[in-house]
Amino acid sequence: MIVTGQPEEFRELLGRARAEGAVVGLHPTMGALHPGHLANIRQAAHDCDLAAVTIFVNPLQFGPGEDFEKYPRTLDQDLAAADEAGAGVVLCPPPEAMFSQVPLTTVAVRGLSGRWEGASRPGHFDGVATIVTKLFALAGECRAYFGEKDFQQLAVVRRLVADLSLPVEVVACPTVREPDGLALSSRNRYLGQDERRAAPGIYWALLAGKRSIEEDGLRDGHEVVRTMVRACEREPLVDLEYAAVVRPDDLEPLDEVVLPARLLIAGRVGRARLIDNVAVGGEGT
Amino acid sequence: MIVTGQPEEFRELLGRARAEGAVVGLHPTMGALHPGHLANIRQAAHDCDLAAVTIFVNPLQFGPGEDFEKYPRTLDQDLAAADEAGAGVVLCPPPEAMFSQVPLTTVAVRGLSGRWEGASRPGHFDGVATIVTKLFALAGECRAYFGEKDFQQLAVVRRLVADLSLPVEVVACPTVREPDGLALSSRNRYLGQDERRAAPGIYWALLAGKRSIEEDGLRDGHEVVRTMVRACEREPLVDLEYAAVVRPDDLEPLDEVVLPARLLIAGRVGRARLIDNVAVGGEGT
Repeated sequence: MIVTGQPEEFRELLGRARAEGAVVGLHPTMGALHPGHLANIRQAAHDCDLAAVTIFVNPLQFGPGEDFEKYPRTLDQDLAAADEAGAGVVLCPPPEAMFSQVPLTTVAVRGLSGRWEGASRPGHFDGVATIVTKLFALAGECRAYFGEKDFQQLAVVRRLVADLSLPVEVVACPTVREPDGLALSSRNRYLGQDERRAAPGIYWALLAGKRSIEEDGLRDGHEVVRTMVRACEREPLVDLEYAAVVRPDDLEPLDEVVLPARLLIAGRVGRARLIDNVAVGGEGT
Repeated sequence: MIVTGQPEEFRELLGRARAEGAVVGLHPTMGALHPGHLANIRQAAHDCDLAAVTIFVNPLQFGPGEDFEKYPRTLDQDLAAADEAGAGVVLCPPPEAMFSQVPLTTVAVRGLSGRWEGASRPGHFDGVATIVTKLFALAGECRAYFGEKDFQQLAVVRRLVADLSLPVEVVACPTVREPDGLALSSRNRYLGQDERRAAPGIYWALLAGKRSIEEDGLRDGHEVVRTMVRACEREPLVDLEYAAVVRPDDLEPLDEVVLPARLLIAGRVGRARLIDNVAVGGEGT
């Protein structure tokens, strides 16, 4: 596995591999790799000739007062785990190698970026879209692996790839869960013991919503949302931010449920802000 | 010369040429090609193995009430002229081939885009930055040729290429002028006979400003601007919008002139809105 801190070296390595006929798989991350990331890297290594991983805690996607400074940074373990999972190249640039001057350019996906996570975290998806466009430009033609766990991010990335005609095939990777259903997330390490026990309540609420549609035949979107809200209330440590049933491509909320749909929940558990989602009546997990 | 209306075919043609070792030169245009464009195409064909030209009247960069509908469209002549100038591939897509759905993604270059032309034409440079990013994504690694005539556009493109790490080398092409100094522009055809005679006044005013700095040693930016304003006033048909002396990279106006600098003028002559600029104390024309 080749590790570089230099974006231009990363570009060259991938370009050279492509020139020799390799299909490149890219998994962009902010590090703090957990088994969810590693499953994505394994999938990229399995599908492609070369799995490339980026590890960069992107300052553009953190708002004021968010956890940019405290975001877990575990580079040595990350590199060992990425190697083990089959990564061939890792880019882990220092901030000044990514931005030699303050960037003035922003990539924004209107509409999609403003709702749900975007409403709670203004500017977040502009930061995501901007860094992802830059990482795609560095990586060149590739398959890019993104977890379904960050479902809105996946939708934003798919849309910007289509709108900007980027030479990238976006691949959605299923959410990896703990045995009790909690979606793996780098932010789970913020959870205390009681909070950790309460946190899977988010997933159970999503499943309650899913059952209400798939088994009980509920089609009133607001009723489905109430079902999820009531399920969340059973866990007092889960401080619900939003629950929603949406169209999968643009995350528009559905008054009447049309399938396939997606259920989204965000909430705080202690000092961790957690998000999760499930598919209803369609592909995906 | 290969002509295609399909962006994906354009991508493939250029990718194949690159795979065979060709250096690709790209000149994005909105058509209505004049000898200024043709000089850029000739330069691309001279410097590179394959000169690619795009002809697309980009709706994203026109504001309401601007001349999108009326913008001159002269495809047959454009293709003949591009061929003559050495173009190897031309992409001239119908709007629906560029945008199969309404694009939600915008690329914006903060600061740079808001002043001068951006102040007169809100959203204009976001439209330029977005389409240029898309054309660059389709073209892949290339040298991209942009005229100095649209100096702010050149600065915006340079900045977005740097910020987004696009695999593009931006090449500035000198402004081509009529014998009386008028910068070539597709919008010159809007000029009536008297207006055509008055229009070079913009260039003469730029030269007056340039002389005041280079020959008279003027360093007070406001005095330089007044010199240009007074020169414009000699042509009553020139309705000055702004005259400015700016730093070349970010187009920040200069209270005290530091070299190299750039002089900018925009004004209306009849129904044509014209812009022009000259270099002071540095490279460029």
